[in-house]
Amino acid sequence: MAKKRTKKHQKKSGLAPGSVIYTGEKSDKKLFLEVFDYTPEEYIEKELNSIEEVFDFKLTDCVSWINVNGLNHVTEIEKLGIHFNLHPLVIEDLVSISQRPKIDEYEDYLFVVLKMLYHDADENIINEQVSFILGPNYVLSFQESEGDVFGAVRDRIRQGKGRVRTMQSDYLLYILMDAIVDEYFSIIETLGYKIEDLESDIFEGSIEETATKDIQELKKEILKVRRSIFPLREVISRIEKDESNLIQQRTKTYYRDIYDHLFQVTENIDIYREMIWSLMDMYMTTISNKMNEVMKVLTIMASIFIPLTFIAGIYGMNFDYIPELHYKYSYFILWGVMIVLFIAMLIYFKRKKWL
Amino acid sequence: MAKKRTKKHQKKSGLAPGSVIYTGEKSDKKLFLEVFDYTPEEYIEKELNSIEEVFDFKLTDCVSWINVNGLNHVTEIEKLGIHFNLHPLVIEDLVSISQRPKIDEYEDYLFVVLKMLYHDADENIINEQVSFILGPNYVLSFQESEGDVFGAVRDRIRQGKGRVRTMQSDYLLYILMDAIVDEYFSIIETLGYKIEDLESDIFEGSIEETATKDIQELKKEILKVRRSIFPLREVISRIEKDESNLIQQRTKTYYRDIYDHLFQVTENIDIYREMIWSLMDMYMTTISNKMNEVMKVLTIMASIFIPLTFIAGIYGMNFDYIPELHYKYSYFILWGVMIVLFIAMLIYFKRKKWL
Amino acid sequence: MAKKRTKKHQKKSGLAPGSVIYTGEKSDKKLFLEVFDYTPEEYIEKELNSIEEVFDFKLTDCVSWINVNGLNHVTEIEKLGIHFNLHPLVIEDLVSISQRPKIDEYEDYLFVVLKMLYHDADENIINEQVSFILGPNYVLSFQESEGDVFGAVRDRIRQGKGRVRTMQSDYLLYILMDAIVDEYFSIIETLGYKIEDLESDIFEGSIEETATKDIQELKKEILKVRRSIFPLREVISRIEKDESNLIQQRTKTYYRDIYDHLFQVTENIDIYREMIWSLMDMYMTTISNKMNEVMKVLTIMASIFIPLTFIAGIYGMNFDYIPELHYKYSYFILWGVMIVLFIAMLIYFKRKKWL
Amino acid sequence: MAKKRTKKHQKKSGLAPGSVIYTGEKSDKKLFLEVFDYTPEEYIEKELNSIEEVFDFKLTDCVSWINVNGLNHVTEIEKLGIHFNLHPLVIEDLVSISQRPKIDEYEDYLFVVLKMLYHDADENIINEQVSFILGPNYVLSFQESEGDVFGAVRDRIRQGKGRVRTMQSDYLLYILMDAIVDEYFSIIETLGYKIEDLESDIFEGSIEETATKDIQELKKEILKVRRSIFPLREVISRIEKDESNLIQQRTKTYYRDIYDHLFQVTENIDIYREMIWSLMDMYMTTISNKMNEVMKVLTIMASIFIPLTFIAGIYGMNFDYIPELHYKYSYFILWGVMIVLFIAMLIYFKRKKWL
Amino acid sequence: MAKKRTKKHQKKSGLAPGSVIYTGEKSDKKLFLEVFDYTPEEYIEKELNSIEEVFDFKLTDCVSWINVNGLNHVTEIEKLGIHFNLHPLVIEDLVSISQRPKIDEYEDYLFVVLKMLYHDADENIINEQVSFILGPNYVLSFQESEGDVFGAVRDRIRQGKGRVRTMQSDYLLYILMDAIVDEYFSIIETLGYKIEDLESDIFEGSIEETATKDIQELKKEILKVRRSIFPLREVISRIEKDESNLIQQRTKTYYRDIYDHLFQVTENIDIYREMIWSLMDMYMTTISNKMNEVMKVLTIMASIFIPLTFIAGIYGMNFDYIPELHYKYSYFILWGVMIVLFIAMLIYFKRKKWL
Ligand SMILES: [Mg+2]
Ligand SMILES: [Mg+2]
Ligand SMILES: [Mg+2]
Ligand SMILES: [Mg+2]
Ligand SMILES: [Mg+2]
Ligand SMILES: [Mg+2]
Ligand SMILES: [Mg+2]
Ligand SMILES: [Mg+2]
Ligand SMILES: [Mg+2]
Ligand SMILES: [Mg+2]
Ligand SMILES: [Mg+2]
Ligand SMILES: [Mg+2]
Ligand SMILES: [Mg+2]
Ligand SMILES: [Mg+2]
Ligand SMILES: [Mg+2]
Ligand SMILES: [Mg+2]
Ligand SMILES: [Mg+2]
Ligand SMILES: [Mg+2]
Ligand SMILES: [Mg+2]
Ligand SMILES: [Mg+2]
Ligand SMILES: [Mg+2]
Ligand SMILES: [Mg+2]
Ligand SMILES: [Mg+2]
Ligand SMILES: [Mg+2]
Ligand SMILES: [Mg+2]
Ligand SMILES: [Mg+2]
Ligand SMILES: [Mg+2]
Ligand SMILES: [Mg+2]
Ligand SMILES: [Mg+2]
Ligand SMILES: [Mg+2]
Ligand SMILES: [Mg+2]
Repeated sequence: MAKKRTKKHQKKSGLAPGSVIYTGEKSDKKLFLEVFDYTPEEYIEKELNSIEEVFDFKLTDCVSWINVNGLNHVTEIEKLGIHFNLHPLVIEDLVSISQRPKIDEYEDYLFVVLKMLYHDADENIINEQVSFILGPNYVLSFQESEGDVFGAVRDRIRQGKGRVRTMQSDYLLYILMDAIVDEYFSIIETLGYKIEDLESDIFEGSIEETATKDIQELKKEILKVRRSIFPLREVISRIEKDESNLIQQRTKTYYRDIYDHLFQVTENIDIYREMIWSLMDMYMTTISNKMNEVMKVLTIMASIFIPLTFIAGIYGMNFDYIPELHYKYSYFILWGVMIVLFIAMLIYFKRKKWL
Repeated sequence: MAKKRTKKHQKKSGLAPGSVIYTGEKSDKKLFLEVFDYTPEEYIEKELNSIEEVFDFKLTDCVSWINVNGLNHVTEIEKLGIHFNLHPLVIEDLVSISQRPKIDEYEDYLFVVLKMLYHDADENIINEQVSFILGPNYVLSFQESEGDVFGAVRDRIRQGKGRVRTMQSDYLLYILMDAIVDEYFSIIETLGYKIEDLESDIFEGSIEETATKDIQELKKEILKVRRSIFPLREVISRIEKDESNLIQQRTKTYYRDIYDHLFQVTENIDIYREMIWSLMDMYMTTISNKMNEVMKVLTIMASIFIPLTFIAGIYGMNFDYIPELHYKYSYFILWGVMIVLFIAMLIYFKRKKWL
Repeated sequence: MAKKRTKKHQKKSGLAPGSVIYTGEKSDKKLFLEVFDYTPEEYIEKELNSIEEVFDFKLTDCVSWINVNGLNHVTEIEKLGIHFNLHPLVIEDLVSISQRPKIDEYEDYLFVVLKMLYHDADENIINEQVSFILGPNYVLSFQESEGDVFGAVRDRIRQGKGRVRTMQSDYLLYILMDAIVDEYFSIIETLGYKIEDLESDIFEGSIEETATKDIQELKKEILKVRRSIFPLREVISRIEKDESNLIQQRTKTYYRDIYDHLFQVTENIDIYREMIWSLMDMYMTTISNKMNEVMKVLTIMASIFIPLTFIAGIYGMNFDYIPELHYKYSYFILWGVMIVLFIAMLIYFKRKKWL
Repeated sequence: MAKKRTKKHQKKSGLAPGSVIYTGEKSDKKLFLEVFDYTPEEYIEKELNSIEEVFDFKLTDCVSWINVNGLNHVTEIEKLGIHFNLHPLVIEDLVSISQRPKIDEYEDYLFVVLKMLYHDADENIINEQVSFILGPNYVLSFQESEGDVFGAVRDRIRQGKGRVRTMQSDYLLYILMDAIVDEYFSIIETLGYKIEDLESDIFEGSIEETATKDIQELKKEILKVRRSIFPLREVISRIEKDESNLIQQRTKTYYRDIYDHLFQVTENIDIYREMIWSLMDMYMTTISNKMNEVMKVLTIMASIFIPLTFIAGIYGMNFDYIPELHYKYSYFILWGVMIVLFIAMLIYFKRKKWL
Repeated sequence: MAKKRTKKHQKKSGLAPGSVIYTGEKSDKKLFLEVFDYTPEEYIEKELNSIEEVFDFKLTDCVSWINVNGLNHVTEIEKLGIHFNLHPLVIEDLVSISQRPKIDEYEDYLFVVLKMLYHDADENIINEQVSFILGPNYVLSFQESEGDVFGAVRDRIRQGKGRVRTMQSDYLLYILMDAIVDEYFSIIETLGYKIEDLESDIFEGSIEETATKDIQELKKEILKVRRSIFPLREVISRIEKDESNLIQQRTKTYYRDIYDHLFQVTENIDIYREMIWSLMDMYMTTISNKMNEVMKVLTIMASIFIPLTFIAGIYGMNFDYIPELHYKYSYFILWGVMIVLFIAMLIYFKRKKWL
């Protein structure tokens, strides 16, 4: 029963706090750096290749969004962290990808970790950790690898649509988080469809063999999504209550909007969780119903033919003296008796509603 | 297993906050505007066709109830929102119909979202989102489409019955919400009847095939109603604690009355939820009881006739030397033995209470 | 499945707040008014027929207990309410009999609603709503109809036993509520006996047919009693924290005593609730055990006689050349073989503990 | 279904508050009074027969432990209560033995009720109510009857071991309660063993008939122990927060130690509670597994011999023209065919792992 | 059912508070003392054999870590405790190994108890109690026996890696606790693998006999780990809120990091707990599915051959006059009829999807 596996967590066990170790699967993806720097009037968009080029953007007055992709490049990320004066534990967490969504408030920046969930081309759920550092005039974002749900945010910055260019970095963080939370709706919608599909498959009896497995898998998926999303509520409500100057009062209204959305999402997840539990019960009753049907067929066949066979057996006996054997119409009378018995049985089972 | 569906939430994903997008099913229903404007002495009732005609009512001293039906008319609703100086996020929420019941307190108005539940002609539950804006001397209400539970409220305004004409807008909001909550009783009463019907159907064994499906459907219905109603308790208790001047002290007593009603409703829903879970268990035992009955019939038939058939088989053998075959009374003695065996079996099963 | 029923709640839906509508079943019971008026030295006991006769007792210095039976007499109750200066919502609640136990604190009186549970002659639980108005020197009580658990309270007032005659109206309210809570013990004791009876019936297997129904019914009864009693804890603890002058400090010790009793009751109810859930599981295993027994009988009978019948069948064949048929002792040898087989089978099943 | 029983609670229903009624089973046990009176230097130990002899100990400067056994002697207990100036409700509670563990704080004494659990000679759990009155220099304890867990406490007082003789009455109360809580460990240890025994009995299949009953009984026992112990946590934490002078600051550390112990106990009880629930599920699967085995035997026997019997039946027919009957080797060929069929069946069932 | 066992807790029952009794299994392991004494510049590492040699380290200015292994040496531990001025209850708890994780704050030291979980060579979970005393410039640690998870901590002290040598004793306590919590990840990872293995074993049907036992064992293991870990969250958050000077402000950030890790761990444990419950349900459906399959085989065999055997029986009867027996082609016609019946049955069962 016990299979050998390499343990994921042995990597970090026993290391000093602040040890910057990438805990994801080793990947040789390129480091990809992307910078947006904007004022209400203009914006700069750059793709960079070395971490040092990013350093200058810290000082500009403009709002800067520095998006770092590729958490396997720990040395570069550590350099960036030191430049931005981040606490060693923050730098450690940036590249440690099994964080629980959380917010840590430091004196001159906020550190937020959350989970970006989205479907890949095959409709699998991708669960990618995204961390944000919110400074007075910059937002740093750290993704495991390229590919995210921020496309529309980039467009809005480029086109100056909406409020984003006229607001500060706290609003930038908001629209990034909002984009992530918006995508959650799509994720749970798919979960809802999967439950419905499974439910109708069970009703129609078309998936016998794999039903328990499917239910169990779906349950795990729901529990994982739940774990990725639920702690974010606490994060958002901590932002709303933040007393540093990093989050302005008027922006908090926007964070409350995210909070509403999260509540809708989490409420749905809990309903799905309850539904999946009853799916198992439902499947169990379906199986029992089928067995009932099988048993009825057996019982009907056996109950009808076993007595008839007994009667035939009687007159197959070789006793020297069995008077009935010699009457001319015995055989036909016996047929009559057997047919009557047969019909009586049918009526009996009909009455019992087994037929 | 995976069916293709268009996703409902893709509509909004990635859009800027404050994007006013109707998230319901596209409908080409007319925009329907209804205004009540009243003082203790007199009242005006109007049906309007354009949003601009409404604007004047904001300024009157009288209490105004402006009821907007047709959330698909986003442009008009946005105009109205801007005229009434609503926050962009409020306008977005007005037309976004999968809101969770909530209250948002702004400086000069309260924004309340809740779910109006009522039965249509076919006894299906209609779940329509209704939003209210409570201003100093007006209440705006926004419904997905025409048709609501406010008939009696309109009559009371027209006839000057009760306190409504003598009170302010906070009382108007109260009687509107009270009308919605009153209707919840009717909804859960129907749910209770459905559970009772299902329960007696299961006891009488008359719905075999569809029972699991029916239970599952009813469970979903209960969970949905639950989700629509439960958050409203929090909304009402926030109103009671409201410290703006929008809700007067003496009106709060009335909101507490709604709170009582909500508690009665939610308590019932939780009892139904517990009952529906045990319905499934009950159904399972019913199935098992039936299988028991089937098995008993089979066992009785087989246990009685298989040994008898064996005996008949013995004397059907063709051995040259079977002494019994040649005694004159063998056949009759054998009949005697078999009848005794038969009766013994019957008594045995009777004793076991299987007969 | 959907049966037609008249809805109970339609009566009130859409009515103005404060509409005084009796929500119970229409009854033509007489209005019955009873008044106790006492000082430490003396007491007056009266039965009155018209509500106006009651009015005078409000002014006396003595403590007055005015007990109103017959909530269908709404006009009279409304008159009384107005005379005692009650809030319209209170008057509405007095006659609206599906209230949840609650306390509402008004400036010069407390309004308490609770459920009086007692057994009628047939051991059915009667669930009657009782409301109290506690004023500075009076207690009004409102019952659905005559018949209550206050017999001993009346005696104590008459005989001047205990503290009651020497204390104020807050103590009178206490002993009335205490009498109601004392009766709860009797109610839950009966529930406990019912569970025990059902449990032993299931163990002894004597109620097959109706067991699920009985369990389900008892579960509902427990849930209903629970709902009637649980909210009262909150009511009592609100009384203990009351800061008006209506409840004196030294009386609060007595209310704490009720609170203790309530806790004992509710704790028991929650244990019963857990027990009833496992009763269902227990019943399910009982059924399965029985089926096991049925199957064993079938399997033993079939396993023993089917092979023997096969052997008999072999020598019933009509082949021209079957050497065994012609040996003189074949038949007896065969009997020997069959008996050995039979015994071997018995031993096998004995070993498996199926016999 | 409804059996007649005398109700335990009818005794008190309707009585005036403060009515001192013994609610246990009527017992004619002698009243047994025991007094310890000690200073650091010396101690007195006395067994008394009349309640008046106790009165003097109230006034001594020494710490006095007055242990009263025999709650049926209500008159004496009432006298004692009045002498020690106890509130009527306290005296009522002292002899009312279905109290929930609780603490009531009065001006010059603390009143603590808890449950002393210990095993009698037959390993049954004895659940005896013990009440304590903690005064400035005395502790009164009230037990239902003689026999307790305080043996070691008495020894420590006599021998002057530990701190007890040097400390005040609050420390005496502590070691008495500590002795009771220490015994809880023994109680839950036994519960744990019972669960383990039941578990292995179920695995080994040795208790078929009574398993559900045993599980149900154990569940009740756990629920009862739980109810006796859980409320005590609240009691202890109230003592820790006590602001009267009755509990000194340095003694509170000791009460925190009891709290730790209680937490260990209650945590274990909740684990047992979860285990017992899964025992029932486990038993259910065990039954189903057994039924599976039974069914397999039946199916194998029937599947092998029914076709063979059919074949034998074919050649037992009496048609005039059945060519095979007349070939010389038919019979032996048929045996060959049947043996092949037999072996094929065995292989088939072997493959299915039914054999 | 009741087996005799010696009770673990009888050891302490009735003893005076502060009685220093080792509650683990008697072991004759040597007392092993290890001391680290360090400043940023240098460190001393010593292994000592007598407790008195340790006393000096209390006074040094350097940070000292005194690691005591072997809780059976109660006299030495008591001496050490008295030298370090520990409260008697603390000394008692040090050697009492079934403590719940907790923190007790004393005036000049903190007392922390937790559970060190790690795998031994056979992958069994070792659950060892570790207690810490945090003083101004020392940390005492107490382990049941040699062997721990602090290897990397020792290396860091020796090599001066990380911050440890530059920080105070509060940071030393942190890295020790961090090492323990890091190991929890490995523990729960293994639990996760066990669940997955059990799950796939159940799906593949390869563990029939022991499945319930395995599930039950795993459930217990999860509950035990849960109990060892959960209370630590409360401990850490109490450290974060500590207001003594023992924990510096800047170190609290590090404790918050442990808190995050604990949350990740406990969240996983709760998911495992939910999964293990559904494993049991899953196993139950698997059993039922198998029984369904067994029943189908039986029903198919019986339904096909019982009617055919009946037909053969008919023509095995010995009536003098059965016309069919004498037609030349009767036998072949009958074969035809039987083959048709046979095929019809196969098609019927195919349609029902039983084949
Ligand atoms: Mg570490
Ligand atoms: Mg990415
Ligand atoms: Mg959004
Ligand atoms: Mg279940
Ligand atoms: Mg599917
Ligand atoms: Mg958006
Ligand atoms: Mg919104
Ligand atoms: Mg809806
Ligand atoms: Mg509408
Ligand atoms: Mg209402
Ligand atoms: Mg179930
Ligand atoms: Mg109304
Ligand atoms: Mg009301
Ligand atoms: Mg009722
Ligand atoms: Mg009455
Ligand atoms: Mg009472
Ligand atoms: Mg269940
Ligand atoms: Mg009964
Ligand atoms: Mg009483
Ligand atoms: Mg009491
Ligand atoms: Mg008891
Ligand atoms: Mg005793
Ligand atoms: Mg103790
Ligand atoms: Mg301790
Ligand atoms: Mg279960
Ligand atoms: Mg002790
Ligand atoms: Mg342990
Ligand atoms: Mg160790
Ligand atoms: Mg760590
Ligand atoms: Mg970290
Ligand atoms: Mg189950």
